[in-house]
Amino acid sequence: MGRWEPNARERLSRAALELFTEHGYDSTTVAEIAERAGLTKRTFFRYFADKREVLFAGQDGLSRIIAEKIIGADGSASPLEAIGAGLEGLDVIFADERRQWARQRHDVITGNDELRERELLKSAAIATALAAALRERGVPDLTAELAAEAGNLAFRTSFTRWIEPSHEQGFAEVVRQTIKELQAAVTHI
Amino acid sequence: MGRWEPNARERLSRAALELFTEHGYDSTTVAEIAERAGLTKRTFFRYFADKREVLFAGQDGLSRIIAEKIIGADGSASPLEAIGAGLEGLDVIFADERRQWARQRHDVITGNDELRERELLKSAAIATALAAALRERGVPDLTAELAAEAGNLAFRTSFTRWIEPSHEQGFAEVVRQTIKELQAAVTHI
Repeated sequence: MGRWEPNARERLSRAALELFTEHGYDSTTVAEIAERAGLTKRTFFRYFADKREVLFAGQDGLSRIIAEKIIGADGSASPLEAIGAGLEGLDVIFADERRQWARQRHDVITGNDELRERELLKSAAIATALAAALRERGVPDLTAELAAEAGNLAFRTSFTRWIEPSHEQGFAEVVRQTIKELQAAVTHI
Repeated sequence: MGRWEPNARERLSRAALELFTEHGYDSTTVAEIAERAGLTKRTFFRYFADKREVLFAGQDGLSRIIAEKIIGADGSASPLEAIGAGLEGLDVIFADERRQWARQRHDVITGNDELRERELLKSAAIATALAAALRERGVPDLTAELAAEAGNLAFRTSFTRWIEPSHEQGFAEVVRQTIKELQAAVTHI
C-alpha cells in the first residue's frame, strides 16, 4: 500500500468525469485519470477495478437503500406510496452538492452504447429489487411487478427532472411530485 | 451468390439453436452451424451477420407490429387496452409451431450475460415504441410511459407463460388473460 492520500477516491472520480467529458469516455486512460488527480495508477486501482467502475461504484447500494425503506414503510401505504418512501430515501445519495456530478455522469453514459447497456442492466436490477421488497410486504406477484415498473419509471423520471439545469428542488421533493403525478396517471391506464 | 438452397434461413436458424442448446452459445462457431444445416459458411453470411443475429433477426419487426395495432385500436380503448390489442397482434409471429423454438431461444439467452443484455436493450426499445404509439393516440407523456411499462410487463409475462411446457393456449389468448390481470392489479398500486 502506498502512502495515504486525502480524498483520493473523490479526486479520482472528479478527474475521471472531467476527462470523460472533455475527451470522451473511450479516449480516456486510467493513467490520464490518475495524472489529472495528482495520484498514481497504483492508487487508482486501490479504489476502482477499471475506469468504468468510476461511474458505477456505489450503485449497488441504491437498491438496498430503496428496499429497506419500502419494507419499513407504513403498513397502510399502497405499493406505489411505499416505493415513493423508498425513492425519497435516496436523497442522502442524490444530495444537492452531487447534482452537477450526476448531470455530467448522465451525459457521459448517454453518449456511449456500452455504458448505456450497463445502465439498463442496473435499472433492471433496481426493478427486481423493488418487486422483491414489495412481495415482502405481502403484495401479490403481478401487482408487485407492475408497481415496481411504475416505481422504476418514477425513479428515472425523478432523476431526469432533478438533474435538469434549471432545477432547484431537492431529490425527495422531486420524487414526491413525480409519485403524485404517477398516481393520477394510474387511473387512466 | 451461390446456388439457391430451399429453406436455408430456417435450416440455419434451427441448426444454430440445436448447437447453442447442446454445446453452449459461446462454444458454437458459424462453421459448425453451417455444417449442421448442410450449408456453407458463405450461405450463412448471406442470411445473418453473425451467430448472435440468428437469435435476434426479425425482432425489430415486433415493435412495428405492436405500434401499428396500438395506433389502429378503437378510439374508446384505454391505453392498456390498446396495448393489449397491439400485443395480440404478435400471434402471427408467436404461432403455436414456433413455441418450441421460442422456448429454446429463451433458454439460450437466459444462460448468457451478453445475450441477456442484448435482450434487455430490445425490451427497452419495445417500451419506447409502445410509449410513442400511445402518444400518437393523444395519451399524455407520463401516462403513456407508465402504460408502456405496464405493456412491456404484459409482454414479458405473456411470453413467459406462453412458453411454459404445460401451456396450450395460443399467444393472443394468453395476452388477453394477462392484460385482464394487469387491469385488476392497476387499481391496487
